[in-house]
Amino acid sequence: MSIRITGFQTFDLRFPTSQQLDGSDAMNPDPDYSAAYVVLETGSSEIRGHGMTFTIGRGNELCVAAIESLAKLLVGCDVQQLMQEPVALYRRLTGDSQLRWVGPEKGVIHLAAAALVNAVWDMWARQQGKPIWQLVADMTPEQFVSCVDFRYLTDAVTPGQALELLRAAAFGKSERLEQLQQTGYPSYTTSAGWLGYSDDQLRQKCTDLKQRGWSHFKIKVGRDMDDDLRRCSVLRQEMGADAFMMVDANQVWDVPEAIEWIEQLRPFNPWFVEEPTSPDDILGHQAISRAVRPIRIATGEMCHNRVMFKQFMQADALQVCQLDCCRLGGVNEVLAVVLLAHRFQIPVCPHAGGVGLCEYVQHISMIDFLCVAGTTEGRVTEYSDHLHEHLHEPVVMANGHYQLPQSPGYSVRFTDEALHGFSFSE
Amino acid sequence: MSIRITGFQTFDLRFPTSQQLDGSDAMNPDPDYSAAYVVLETGSSEIRGHGMTFTIGRGNELCVAAIESLAKLLVGCDVQQLMQEPVALYRRLTGDSQLRWVGPEKGVIHLAAAALVNAVWDMWARQQGKPIWQLVADMTPEQFVSCVDFRYLTDAVTPGQALELLRAAAFGKSERLEQLQQTGYPSYTTSAGWLGYSDDQLRQKCTDLKQRGWSHFKIKVGRDMDDDLRRCSVLRQEMGADAFMMVDANQVWDVPEAIEWIEQLRPFNPWFVEEPTSPDDILGHQAISRAVRPIRIATGEMCHNRVMFKQFMQADALQVCQLDCCRLGGVNEVLAVVLLAHRFQIPVCPHAGGVGLCEYVQHISMIDFLCVAGTTEGRVTEYSDHLHEHLHEPVVMANGHYQLPQSPGYSVRFTDEALHGFSFSE
Repeated sequence: MSIRITGFQTFDLRFPTSQQLDGSDAMNPDPDYSAAYVVLETGSSEIRGHGMTFTIGRGNELCVAAIESLAKLLVGCDVQQLMQEPVALYRRLTGDSQLRWVGPEKGVIHLAAAALVNAVWDMWARQQGKPIWQLVADMTPEQFVSCVDFRYLTDAVTPGQALELLRAAAFGKSERLEQLQQTGYPSYTTSAGWLGYSDDQLRQKCTDLKQRGWSHFKIKVGRDMDDDLRRCSVLRQEMGADAFMMVDANQVWDVPEAIEWIEQLRPFNPWFVEEPTSPDDILGHQAISRAVRPIRIATGEMCHNRVMFKQFMQADALQVCQLDCCRLGGVNEVLAVVLLAHRFQIPVCPHAGGVGLCEYVQHISMIDFLCVAGTTEGRVTEYSDHLHEHLHEPVVMANGHYQLPQSPGYSVRFTDEALHGFSFSE
Repeated sequence: MSIRITGFQTFDLRFPTSQQLDGSDAMNPDPDYSAAYVVLETGSSEIRGHGMTFTIGRGNELCVAAIESLAKLLVGCDVQQLMQEPVALYRRLTGDSQLRWVGPEKGVIHLAAAALVNAVWDMWARQQGKPIWQLVADMTPEQFVSCVDFRYLTDAVTPGQALELLRAAAFGKSERLEQLQQTGYPSYTTSAGWLGYSDDQLRQKCTDLKQRGWSHFKIKVGRDMDDDLRRCSVLRQEMGADAFMMVDANQVWDVPEAIEWIEQLRPFNPWFVEEPTSPDDILGHQAISRAVRPIRIATGEMCHNRVMFKQFMQADALQVCQLDCCRLGGVNEVLAVVLLAHRFQIPVCPHAGGVGLCEYVQHISMIDFLCVAGTTEGRVTEYSDHLHEHLHEPVVMANGHYQLPQSPGYSVRFTDEALHGFSFSE
C-alpha cells in the first residue's frame, strides 16, 4: 500500500516545569521542558507520523520554524520509497545544499531534522504495525547497515565491518527478547537529584525511588563544592554503599577545574561523572578521563552528531555514551552511534528525562540489547518521572525497568489534552 | 553620553547568485548568498548598530527568527554599560539558560548571536567615531583580554598568558599601522576557481585577477579527480610556478579518501588544502595533516566556536586558521580565536566571500596584524569580487590588498536599495 505524505502540522508545546524546579542543574537553573512536535499527514486519517525534538523552553519556536522549513522536503514523498533507502531519507533532511550551511548537522536545524526523521520512522512503523524496537529487531544485518550514513565514519567503521559486527551480534537474539519480555530494560533515575531540591526532598525522593526498585541514582553537582559534598553524603547514606551513584556537572567546569573537583568527589565512588566540561571538548574530556581514572566520564546529551561521537570514542574521551534521540538526527544517526559504540566497546546509556525522551530511548536501548551490544551489563538507561501523562503511549516501568513497548510506532504521540493545554503562544 | 537600545529591525536578504554559479563548489552547487541582517535602534536616528550573519539561502529565515528571539535580551540595555564589560555582552547572548539548549554556541542560534554581538560592537564603534579595527587597536592589552570569554579555554591559554602575549605583541604597533596605511593587508581570491566555471572562464578570470595584483588563487576541487587535475593544470599554467595556489574541497571527503586525493594533487604544490572533510572532525584533520605533510591543511569557515578551534590547534589538526566572523559568536569570540592562534603560532587567514564577509574580516586581519600576530608573513585574507555594491562602506582593494577602512563601525550596513530590492518573501 502506498502512503504519501500530504502535509504536516507543528506544535510548540511547553510545560512549565521551572515552577517546581524539576530538572534544575548547575547550567540550567529553570528549564521549561518543551517539545517541538510535528505530525506528518497522509491522505488517510488512520496513518500519521509523530516526531518531536526536545528543548527546555525559549528557542523551541526556532526548532518549530526549522521543522517547517525542512518538512517541505518531505511533502509529496512516498513513505515506502523513503524507507526502502533509509540513508536517502537522512540525507534528504540533513544534506539540503543551502540549509546545510546553518548547521551542518548541529544545533537547531539538526534538532529539527531529528523530529522529522523520527516522524517518518514512526509513520512507517505504524503502517507495519510494529513498535520501532521491533521494526529494527526484525531487520537483517544488511537492512540495519542500510539505515546508517557512513559518510565521515569510514576511518572508524566501514559498512563491511558493521555488517560483520551485526552478524556476530545476532546470535541469541530470541533469548534476549524473552528476557526483555520478562524483566524489561534496566534504568537509572535522575528524579531525586535536581539541584533545586532541598536535602529533605532529596532524602524523601531517594527512599521512594528505592522502594520502587531503583538501584542507580544520579545527582546534579558543580554549583558549590560544600553543597556537593553534603548532598553526595545524603545520597550515599540513603542509598547504602552498594547502590550506584552518578554525578552530573552539566558542563560547568573548565578542564583543570573538572579534574580537581572530581578528585574531591572520588570518596563517594561515583559510577560515572557526566558532562564535566564543554560538550564540544573532545580533547578536554580525554584529558579529564586520563586524570581521574578509574572514574568513568559520561557525555552525549549535547553531542550533536556521529562525527563528534566517533572522535570521543577514538580518543577514549568518554567511557559511557549518553546519546540523545533528538540531538542526533533521528533513528538513522542513533543507529550509527550505537554501532560505533559497539565497535569501540563503550556502553550506551542514553540520555532521557525531559518530555518524550524516555518514550524514545526505551526503543533504542532495546535495539542495542537485541541487535548490537547483546548485553545489558554495565548499561542503564536514564529515566525521569515527569510529564509522561501527556503522551498517548507512555513508558511503562516495573521494578526500575523499562517494559517492552507494545504499541506500533516511536511512542511520542501527544494527547489532544496536551496539544490544547500546553501549546505556547507569546 | 548614554545610548540605550530601544528596538531592532531584521531583514532576510537574499541575492540570487545561484543563477551565475558564482560560489559553486563540490558541497554547495547553487548557493544564493544571503544575510540575516539586524539594525539595533536607539532613541536617536544618528546612532544605530548594524550586524549580519551570512548564509547561502534557505535557512536564512531561521537565522532571522533566532536574531529576533535573542534581540529581546538587548532591548533596554545601555550600550556603554554593555561595552564596559564585553564578556558580559557575549555571555548575555550565548548563555541564556534556555536558549543555550538549542546550541550551545553552534548552528542557527550562534550565527544569530554573532549578528547581534557584531551589531552592538558596530554601534559602539560608530558612537566612538572609529572603525572596529581602530577601536580594538586603541585598547590596552588588559582591555583586549576583557573582551574574551576564557570559559573552556584555560587548559590552552589563561587570561594571564594572553596578557603577556599581547604586551609583547604591542611593540612596533605604530610602524605596522603605517604599513597598513601605505599598502593595506594582503588578500587571496576565490573569484576565479568556482566549480561551476568552464576552463575558459577560469583562464579569463585568472588573467584578469593577476593583472589586478593578486598572486594567491584558490580553486575548488573534490567533485571529480580528472576534472580537478585538468583545472589545476589550467590554473598553474595561467599563474606561473611562483604564484600561490590553494585548493578547497568543501568537506566532500572521508579521511582515507582525503589522504589519497591530496596525494594526487601534490604535484601542483598547493599552498594549502582547505576543508578536506567534516568540519567537526578534529581527529580526522589531524590524521590527514600527518599524512600529507608538508602540505598544510586549512579549515574554519564552519568551525563553530572557540572550543573547537582550541582543539584543532592543540591537535595540530589545522595549519591555517580560517575563522569566520559570523560563524563564531561575533567580535568577542573572534578575538579569542585570534589569541589562540597566536598562542599556537598558527597563521590566521580568515574566511570571506559571500556577502558582507569581506567587509567584516578586513578589520579582524588588521587587528591580528596590529595587536596580536604582528606580521602578515604567511597570511592572506580571502577576498571575493561580488556583492560589495550592496553595502554602504564596501571594501576598498588596491593591488590585491585590503585598504584600511576609514568609516566608523564594522562595515556591514546595507544600502536602502539592497533592503528594498533583495528582501526575501516566499
